[in-house]
Amino acid sequence: ITTKLPAVGTTIFSVMSALAAEKNAVNLGQGFPDFNCDARLVQAVTSAMERGLNQYPPMPGVPALRDAVAGKIAAMYGHRYGAADEITITAGATQAIITAILAVVRPGDEVIVLDPCYDSYVPNIDLAGGTAVRVPLTPGTFRPDFDRIAAAIGPKTRAIIVNSPHNPSATVWTQGEMLHLQELLAPTDVLLISDEVYEHMVFDGERHQSAARFPGLAARAFIISSFGKTYHVTGWKVGYVAAPAPLTAEFRKVHQFNVFTVNTPMQHGLAAYMADAAPYLELPAFYQRKRDLFREGLATTRLRLLPSQGSYFQCVDISTVSDLSESDFCLWLTGEIGVAAIPLSAFYPDGFDQRVVRFCFAKKDETLHSALERLRRL
Amino acid sequence: ITTKLPAVGTTIFSVMSALAAEKNAVNLGQGFPDFNCDARLVQAVTSAMERGLNQYPPMPGVPALRDAVAGKIAAMYGHRYGAADEITITAGATQAIITAILAVVRPGDEVIVLDPCYDSYVPNIDLAGGTAVRVPLTPGTFRPDFDRIAAAIGPKTRAIIVNSPHNPSATVWTQGEMLHLQELLAPTDVLLISDEVYEHMVFDGERHQSAARFPGLAARAFIISSFGKTYHVTGWKVGYVAAPAPLTAEFRKVHQFNVFTVNTPMQHGLAAYMADAAPYLELPAFYQRKRDLFREGLATTRLRLLPSQGSYFQCVDISTVSDLSESDFCLWLTGEIGVAAIPLSAFYPDGFDQRVVRFCFAKKDETLHSALERLRRL
Ligand SMILES: CSCCC(=O)C(=O)O
Ligand SMILES: CSCCC(=O)C(=O)O
Repeated sequence: ITTKLPAVGTTIFSVMSALAAEKNAVNLGQGFPDFNCDARLVQAVTSAMERGLNQYPPMPGVPALRDAVAGKIAAMYGHRYGAADEITITAGATQAIITAILAVVRPGDEVIVLDPCYDSYVPNIDLAGGTAVRVPLTPGTFRPDFDRIAAAIGPKTRAIIVNSPHNPSATVWTQGEMLHLQELLAPTDVLLISDEVYEHMVFDGERHQSAARFPGLAARAFIISSFGKTYHVTGWKVGYVAAPAPLTAEFRKVHQFNVFTVNTPMQHGLAAYMADAAPYLELPAFYQRKRDLFREGLATTRLRLLPSQGSYFQCVDISTVSDLSESDFCLWLTGEIGVAAIPLSAFYPDGFDQRVVRFCFAKKDETLHSALERLRRL
Repeated sequence: ITTKLPAVGTTIFSVMSALAAEKNAVNLGQGFPDFNCDARLVQAVTSAMERGLNQYPPMPGVPALRDAVAGKIAAMYGHRYGAADEITITAGATQAIITAILAVVRPGDEVIVLDPCYDSYVPNIDLAGGTAVRVPLTPGTFRPDFDRIAAAIGPKTRAIIVNSPHNPSATVWTQGEMLHLQELLAPTDVLLISDEVYEHMVFDGERHQSAARFPGLAARAFIISSFGKTYHVTGWKVGYVAAPAPLTAEFRKVHQFNVFTVNTPMQHGLAAYMADAAPYLELPAFYQRKRDLFREGLATTRLRLLPSQGSYFQCVDISTVSDLSESDFCLWLTGEIGVAAIPLSAFYPDGFDQRVVRFCFAKKDETLHSALERLRRL
């Protein structure tokens, strides 16, 4: 069989996690917490299973969970989505992104992605028969370059994918940047796929500039987020998409024939947990403390720190410690120093190497301390 | 926004379940059990969550669960798949099917489907840019018509989708039919997508003729099944695909960028549950008893019974009781008699109406009795 996706190997996150396990390294590569979720959340899921909530839920998701999402978005961003026809629960954010793309991108359409970007976007666009038009974020700062974005928009542009807080760079779009995007898209029909999975991890008193805050963006946007990242259950694979009713209708046409629906007891458990409190409100302080602990430790190593405004990632410049390529450095760091990291080149089409690697700090304090101890050997 | 899928509405299963709830009807429409799974399975999942198994599992699935699947297939069908590179855990069988299609079907390729067929197949083929070539099963008996299948195979044929035990007709392919298919495909490169989600529901002492039993089929097949159907947890959305390593490699390229991976605690729970025993061995007797109970009851109504050789479905001919179309009959039956069913026309492209509707008997005995009481009013 000849492959349809010749450029695609195994995702870097799997490769590095496997290597970390093999080398017994501290795994700061793939983004996931190494601590458990709240025991109340586990109990809520168990209770749902014991009550027999183990069969198909409604195709768009359990109503109580869709209500909770609509309520959260309204409270945080001031935009009220209809739980019935504008919110859909997905099997994680990755599934939401491919489904949105399959729902709206036709053969010949162009989709703008901003490099570095998550490694599923471009294969997703390929599978829909579209063409990814790759625009780099400004080298060094990772800020959007609106002149280049404007130049990339043409008659074939179907959508643009934006991700803030940004994986891997840990930058967060400002209000001004979102307004700029809104203005740029205003005269066009270009749709927005807004990957906001790190929405509850924005630091230093700043706030997340969700597309939901900007009417001209919300009207054309699939806003995608992840319960896994917010509630420390990345393995549950539950996310959601919020989009105006006509876009949601198209989304659901594909969704029902992709996964049909999403794990019932997890949905009920999450709904009960969100009804009790607003646990996401504690997340910025929780992760800011870990970020600060990790940065203070890194400052005592020879690695050069980049800013981390949001997400659970911290990037560092490796040029002060090594001449290896990012990718070779990560292999070496995992094997020899015992800390796994992700090369930013994995987020670029051509493997562009700017001597920067990414660490994940969603780890127990003791894990971060033990990684830092090893990194001091550099 | 103009739709990419103009022919697609909401899946009939969701429509009928919603109507059944609204009309307070006994829901024998959508296929799912109305009883709970084994409490030990719930405990196994709870235990996994409490032990902190809530983060991303390996992309192809939890190794213990892939081992259990490989062991089961070997024990049942005599073919040993490699757990490492030939088994992938999916977010349900529907996600396995679309992923297999996206992985191998290119724009311009043809895929043969046998009508009546599950309603996701054709939209899945459309999304891949392929063309569904629809070949009817023999009217009345729903047996495969190999002359027509042979005539449909041409240079553009990429794959054929076969489903046995068959939804909706409840027929089961014989060994002779599988051999015929093997012979037909032998001189071709046509791939087989074998939807075997009802594999453990084959009655009257017959055995399931998995494609895994036929080397010439297994070598070209994606064999797809569902833990949800086998363990009474349709809402957990866990399935698997077994395929030769080169096909699995292509499958995983798409899988990792569709759902990436599948619910961790459910996978661990299922692995522990399958390690304990072989609970699927009890399933034929369990469902045969329900089938017999339901058929005996139906024999006292004016509906004419069709055979049910496998699956948890029972079809009936409605021409003895009504002149309505299948679809209108199901609406009427739900609203006026208080029993929901699925029209077979929903499984045909052109809504072909042969006066047959489908009931699901995966229900508590009391549910079946209460449906039968209502159906006697016909
Ligand atoms: C989907 S696997 C990896 C998790 C992640 O988003 C990342 O590490 O960037
Ligand atoms: C995926 S929803 C319906 C379940 C099913 O397979 C059926 O009823 O045919």
